[in-house]
Amino acid sequence: MSNQELKRAHVGKRLSEYAVYNGVVYLAGQVPEVEPKADIRGQTREVLGHIDRLLAEAGSDKTRILSCQIFLTNVDLIGEMNEVWDAWVPQGNTPPRATVEARLANPEYLIEVVVTAALN
Amino acid sequence: MSNQELKRAHVGKRLSEYAVYNGVVYLAGQVPEVEPKADIRGQTREVLGHIDRLLAEAGSDKTRILSCQIFLTNVDLIGEMNEVWDAWVPQGNTPPRATVEARLANPEYLIEVVVTAALN
Amino acid sequence: MSNQELKRAHVGKRLSEYAVYNGVVYLAGQVPEVEPKADIRGQTREVLGHIDRLLAEAGSDKTRILSCQIFLTNVDLIGEMNEVWDAWVPQGNTPPRATVEARLANPEYLIEVVVTAALN
Repeated sequence: MSNQELKRAHVGKRLSEYAVYNGVVYLAGQVPEVEPKADIRGQTREVLGHIDRLLAEAGSDKTRILSCQIFLTNVDLIGEMNEVWDAWVPQGNTPPRATVEARLANPEYLIEVVVTAALN
Repeated sequence: MSNQELKRAHVGKRLSEYAVYNGVVYLAGQVPEVEPKADIRGQTREVLGHIDRLLAEAGSDKTRILSCQIFLTNVDLIGEMNEVWDAWVPQGNTPPRATVEARLANPEYLIEVVVTAALN
Repeated sequence: MSNQELKRAHVGKRLSEYAVYNGVVYLAGQVPEVEPKADIRGQTREVLGHIDRLLAEAGSDKTRILSCQIFLTNVDLIGEMNEVWDAWVPQGNTPPRATVEARLANPEYLIEVVVTAALN
């Protein structure tokens, strides 16, 4: 199992946006960096859009998510976040998920999402 | 490695309780939804019971845990949580673990646990 | 895929420092237990040192990290943490990462880091 190919993408000086190994893609925490002043619905839409785009690039999609960790700066916003999530998540292929509260690196960010998914 | 079978169980509209892929089961965050008014010991016992049940269903068990993330709404309760944990965790097969504080979706919940495990 | 070998190391009564399965090593949350009174730079250096040592033991290294979750008790210290991180992380092989705030088990700890990596 060792010496298998490990692929990375969008490799920056500090982090990369994803790694692929052994049929699984590991995404970096996705944040609303484009529209950080949007409300929780807008920020959630942006973050889920980043996830769609990166999964597609890696050769996966939202029907293949293995685990999803959601951090909200205010967990009381989970209802509004869930409205956007429920419209996005593929029925019949909803993933295991955990949602907790945590302050994030940028005080404007209301949400950060970490996803692991199987390749197609 | 692609196009391998991905299995899900307890698939709801928002999330599923676990996904199985490539010999690994990924559990959703387990919470004390049955007895949310119990103290930290009772809530921990309930959550570890959910984990036992779901791992068994998936074809795994607590001797096969690969990683365990514990969120406590009050990390000062780690001592009481550990009492229940220590009685549950299989000697010789204790898993890698991380425990941090985080507010949870339901204000009554004192604990949420996310587990990844190898199949038997 | 089932019944594959699962290896653990530094197996204590409560947790083990890592598990290896199917070409992937899962580390326990690493904390600055040796120098808990150091500042964030010192604590970060210690934690990254633990990660280097455990990955080497498991047959991996920092160029093979698949995912990295960083918890800071004060996320405003992310700048100082990043100075140490940036000097440590291998250019061309930076990993997916998420950094959020969380109180930790020991009030002196400023940082805890959870890493998953591919074997060499």
